[in-house]
Amino acid sequence: MKIRVLLPIVVDIFNEEVKQEFRNYFPETTEIEVCHLDYGPASVEGEYDEALCVPNMLEKAIQAEKDGCDGVISLCGADPAVKPAREVLNIPIVGAGEASMLYATLLAKSFSIVTVLPNVVSMVENVSKMLGVDSKLNSIRYVNIPVLELVDKEKMETSLLEEMVLAIEQDKAHALILGCTGMMGVASILQEKLKERGYEVPVIDPSFAAAKLLENLIAMNIKQSRLTYMTPTKKMYKQRER
Amino acid sequence: MKIRVLLPIVVDIFNEEVKQEFRNYFPETTEIEVCHLDYGPASVEGEYDEALCVPNMLEKAIQAEKDGCDGVISLCGADPAVKPAREVLNIPIVGAGEASMLYATLLAKSFSIVTVLPNVVSMVENVSKMLGVDSKLNSIRYVNIPVLELVDKEKMETSLLEEMVLAIEQDKAHALILGCTGMMGVASILQEKLKERGYEVPVIDPSFAAAKLLENLIAMNIKQSRLTYMTPTKKMYKQRER
Amino acid sequence: MKIRVLLPIVVDIFNEEVKQEFRNYFPETTEIEVCHLDYGPASVEGEYDEALCVPNMLEKAIQAEKDGCDGVISLCGADPAVKPAREVLNIPIVGAGEASMLYATLLAKSFSIVTVLPNVVSMVENVSKMLGVDSKLNSIRYVNIPVLELVDKEKMETSLLEEMVLAIEQDKAHALILGCTGMMGVASILQEKLKERGYEVPVIDPSFAAAKLLENLIAMNIKQSRLTYMTPTKKMYKQRER
Amino acid sequence: MKIRVLLPIVVDIFNEEVKQEFRNYFPETTEIEVCHLDYGPASVEGEYDEALCVPNMLEKAIQAEKDGCDGVISLCGADPAVKPAREVLNIPIVGAGEASMLYATLLAKSFSIVTVLPNVVSMVENVSKMLGVDSKLNSIRYVNIPVLELVDKEKMETSLLEEMVLAIEQDKAHALILGCTGMMGVASILQEKLKERGYEVPVIDPSFAAAKLLENLIAMNIKQSRLTYMTPTKKMYKQRER
Amino acid sequence: MKIRVLLPIVVDIFNEEVKQEFRNYFPETTEIEVCHLDYGPASVEGEYDEALCVPNMLEKAIQAEKDGCDGVISLCGADPAVKPAREVLNIPIVGAGEASMLYATLLAKSFSIVTVLPNVVSMVENVSKMLGVDSKLNSIRYVNIPVLELVDKEKMETSLLEEMVLAIEQDKAHALILGCTGMMGVASILQEKLKERGYEVPVIDPSFAAAKLLENLIAMNIKQSRLTYMTPTKKMYKQRER
Amino acid sequence: MKIRVLLPIVVDIFNEEVKQEFRNYFPETTEIEVCHLDYGPASVEGEYDEALCVPNMLEKAIQAEKDGCDGVISLCGADPAVKPAREVLNIPIVGAGEASMLYATLLAKSFSIVTVLPNVVSMVENVSKMLGVDSKLNSIRYVNIPVLELVDKEKMETSLLEEMVLAIEQDKAHALILGCTGMMGVASILQEKLKERGYEVPVIDPSFAAAKLLENLIAMNIKQSRLTYMTPTKKMYKQRER
Repeated sequence: MKIRVLLPIVVDIFNEEVKQEFRNYFPETTEIEVCHLDYGPASVEGEYDEALCVPNMLEKAIQAEKDGCDGVISLCGADPAVKPAREVLNIPIVGAGEASMLYATLLAKSFSIVTVLPNVVSMVENVSKMLGVDSKLNSIRYVNIPVLELVDKEKMETSLLEEMVLAIEQDKAHALILGCTGMMGVASILQEKLKERGYEVPVIDPSFAAAKLLENLIAMNIKQSRLTYMTPTKKMYKQRER
Repeated sequence: MKIRVLLPIVVDIFNEEVKQEFRNYFPETTEIEVCHLDYGPASVEGEYDEALCVPNMLEKAIQAEKDGCDGVISLCGADPAVKPAREVLNIPIVGAGEASMLYATLLAKSFSIVTVLPNVVSMVENVSKMLGVDSKLNSIRYVNIPVLELVDKEKMETSLLEEMVLAIEQDKAHALILGCTGMMGVASILQEKLKERGYEVPVIDPSFAAAKLLENLIAMNIKQSRLTYMTPTKKMYKQRER
Repeated sequence: MKIRVLLPIVVDIFNEEVKQEFRNYFPETTEIEVCHLDYGPASVEGEYDEALCVPNMLEKAIQAEKDGCDGVISLCGADPAVKPAREVLNIPIVGAGEASMLYATLLAKSFSIVTVLPNVVSMVENVSKMLGVDSKLNSIRYVNIPVLELVDKEKMETSLLEEMVLAIEQDKAHALILGCTGMMGVASILQEKLKERGYEVPVIDPSFAAAKLLENLIAMNIKQSRLTYMTPTKKMYKQRER
Repeated sequence: MKIRVLLPIVVDIFNEEVKQEFRNYFPETTEIEVCHLDYGPASVEGEYDEALCVPNMLEKAIQAEKDGCDGVISLCGADPAVKPAREVLNIPIVGAGEASMLYATLLAKSFSIVTVLPNVVSMVENVSKMLGVDSKLNSIRYVNIPVLELVDKEKMETSLLEEMVLAIEQDKAHALILGCTGMMGVASILQEKLKERGYEVPVIDPSFAAAKLLENLIAMNIKQSRLTYMTPTKKMYKQRER
Repeated sequence: MKIRVLLPIVVDIFNEEVKQEFRNYFPETTEIEVCHLDYGPASVEGEYDEALCVPNMLEKAIQAEKDGCDGVISLCGADPAVKPAREVLNIPIVGAGEASMLYATLLAKSFSIVTVLPNVVSMVENVSKMLGVDSKLNSIRYVNIPVLELVDKEKMETSLLEEMVLAIEQDKAHALILGCTGMMGVASILQEKLKERGYEVPVIDPSFAAAKLLENLIAMNIKQSRLTYMTPTKKMYKQRER
Repeated sequence: MKIRVLLPIVVDIFNEEVKQEFRNYFPETTEIEVCHLDYGPASVEGEYDEALCVPNMLEKAIQAEKDGCDGVISLCGADPAVKPAREVLNIPIVGAGEASMLYATLLAKSFSIVTVLPNVVSMVENVSKMLGVDSKLNSIRYVNIPVLELVDKEKMETSLLEEMVLAIEQDKAHALILGCTGMMGVASILQEKLKERGYEVPVIDPSFAAAKLLENLIAMNIKQSRLTYMTPTKKMYKQRER
């Protein structure tokens, strides 16, 4: 099995960490490739950024299928390019946002997402509405740290824990989702810290969630419905002129 | 007042007709400009096409504001670029899909949309969910004519009438929306023909709807909420290399 | 074009102001008539008041059509007489409540209404449910000032601003609606004051909203669906005996 | 215990039958009074009719409380005057529409209503939305017989049975409601006939339902919430001039 | 008329009180029988307890019908055994949870439930979702007193009042439900005390609510829909070995 | 990793097939145990059957944890015992119904379930409501074959295909779920046959879905929220007397 993880950003600062983390998610026999964008935004922190990352994301997704990949991951809490890619791919693609919401839906009567910035709140809420699980989404909170500053793990962890406790106590969340795939490697620690405070709730890592869901789809031989995501009609696409 | 109508397609076959139709929508003093894309798809008939039209749509929208426009219209039933443009614009932008749905919501207890192809059904349904009026949307039907073939007005009209009658009789629609902005100039005729058959229901032209809503926003001095559509954080955007 | 504005109250203290305000909403060529009731309540502050204003409202609406009006406005945040009038009119009628909610639905992911008294909260919430946009209505707040005391503009403005800030900060409203048509001429000022506090959100004047929506319907040649609002069957209506 | 049944119509053709039927619903010790309107419509078959019956209904309801009644029934499937009456009464009032929907909600996963004419469909659907049980309402069908022609019991029964079978087979209704209080005395027969056809489903008589619910409220010493239905603020109500 | 009240617990400490209370709910001619379980949990405070009470509840329900009862009550706020019993009974059965929610739905625009322990919150919320009235349920609060300690009536009353005031002031509840059938005989007192504090809202006793609804169903000759609750197919049921 | 699959039935006819199928779902290193019930129903075809299978299911689930299992599967489309088991287990448990619905939610805008008998329709619909994905569930169809007769694979396959085509064409399902875990080993074949008919939609095997989801939860170190599924309070549970 070969899968490719697409980062919707033009910087490569997360590549190595993503590769290492994903290594833990899969059996040794799985080939894992991680790639960032050639053109697009430095990070996805709103609808505008998302719009600009999608064209190259789609090219990367199509290339992944050509290169023999069995599945693709859109590594971002807002699931950029997932819907259009489903139209042009014959392999499954999973977004980190939708994947994490499905696990939260399964394990608790309500959940909250803690994301990076207020800018992405509406966008992520819309993901939940289109997915159809919005009745269980109690709130979307944010740590007010831009994506590219998530490298300060300690600060991130402290802020996340604070918001998670508020999500439980004020918003009555019974499960928690890390809203940004840049928040890697801290889900289990945060789950443990919440437990110490008396809150034994699942903390869901969206990268891990997407990885496992994709693995399942491949194993189960199922993918996007072609009735929902129809193959694009043939037409001319004009390239940007230089 | 000056407004600019953005067609999310790289062909100019609709420009003249759009210009003439929009002339009827506004008082003489309103300046109306119509432009098509420099790069992107020949038509928007699915998520993939939409994704590829958005980058240039955003550039066009930004340019419109720079050129002193008071508002922008995204002329397509799927509202491409509307949400990201709201983040970067300080003038209002209205999509034809959302505009038409609001009028239908006002005038009837339920409505149906008749669009071009099955490919766009999910996309348009998602527009209704994000807008929050999906409980009144009974069905999305289609005439099975690609956007660029809508120039055969007679065929289009006949097919639309047929599907509209089915929407009323089978799906219990009480109002009807033309699902594609390529279906210009036929709303009143279809409304009349349905009345002759005993169905006195509003038939809503999405271009007209968007034009009037935008005019209103400008007049009322209101625009997109900056809490929902926040200004993008500063960051690097890398251009496609030649 | 000739339109008539119906005030659902037996006092004429708002007539002049309404007339002046509406003058600003329409082009000079539009004839605007404002009328109050001959019998009914002094103000509409609940279901009981509303019930008592409707019979004369309906007579006034029917008279408006007979007098050649192109459309009618029910000038109240609870939309009295709008639904029954749609059955007997062949011209469009728009309520200020529903109109304002549609604009809020368009411009933000959530909105709150600030109205006069707690008495009208359930009634207005029901308007949103029947219209089908209740999933975006976060809260209905009130300034605790009766309709007829809204003439003290300064007090009204201060109270409105206070509740609007609470709506944003506590109820997560991203757009705001003035819940009573007696709250005239302050929307733009409040919008400005909220912006000064860092909240750049649309503040929607329900009178203005209704005026523009009605103007649109007339221009677009669409009106209420006769499948939703059927012409009353013929029957005897007995008048009140003296 | 003394209760008063208000018929929202100016004719008295149903009074005797209603009295007799209600006699069966209550223990002998309950005093039952039935009254029709002094002014208003001959029947309620739409929003317009409803609007015109409400003022006298309210007067009758207030008089009932003054006369020592313990509760009031609004005998119509569209619940005219129920909400405004709740504001001015200190005794409970129940509408036949809402009462029947609650029993259907209890006994089945879905229900349909069979009413008189297409004119009332939207109105009754709105009752279900305001009550909050619309997710279980599968359809509203009609027999196309005006209220005042329901006296031909045989024709009514045949038509009702036909529509009920369609409601079960096509709309997947698991319980049925007689949508008009003029459809008296046939619920049990229809229930039996449906059972003979293999459909063992409850058929709910709205008059009976309202009677029993009201009896319960009185017994349980509960009535409308004063937070939802606040006492009207003091104000002038101008009477119609002669 | 003969009805049997089933307590889903193996202790008999509530039997006498239940019998006395139910005596007040029914006319003298009604035979009332109260029985507790032979095997199962000491109290129902969660999904696990509920699961264990159901088998004997079902046996008791079937026995009740064999003994000529006209109806059965499942006396618990979580409605244990109600759905499966509906499949095997030809007489109606009503749960205290669902019954109380229907009355609250009728009398107010929103309601809250105050129950015993946090353990039952999800379970009761699910009851509201399956019943279809969850859009009106604002919150479920708890007094943190186990079922079997509800015998200290004073402590219970004080705690209930406190939570009810919070439900009104913080959760905007307009009606209140006692969430446990062990909270007997205090509804009217609490209703009075809330009124003294300015909150004239209905306080609904779930036992009383279930009793009256069941009485109605019997009187109206309606019961569970056999399309929703089908008779079990014939099959072998293996008993537990000794 | 060791997992145990619980069949909620007292017959062992499916054990071997389940074991073999599950062998395909997991890597070789996973220990898979399959067990049926000691007491309870021969099959689960309704609420009554489900109620009777739960007590032993809970014992088996508890035993599984004691025996060192890392997770448990409730192998039935109605998810018997899943919620109560979550309260008493410290390892995850997944139901086949909920698992299959989550995959369908991910891959399509709407889905239908094809189950065994009409008896289970309401029960499965309730699963979707409690899970929170009911807005995407278009219909539940059935092949009218009892669980224990599913051994005739050919008949089952033919009937399933027929109903699936109807689900797509009439109910507009875009993904399909096998509603009973007795329908093993046919998902891929049916998916292929539907594709041949022009419908390229995912067909989801509920056993496979549950297996993979459980595997994920164990890998991701997440399980049921203890805020939703609280540990039962200490109390006496009385055993059935012999």
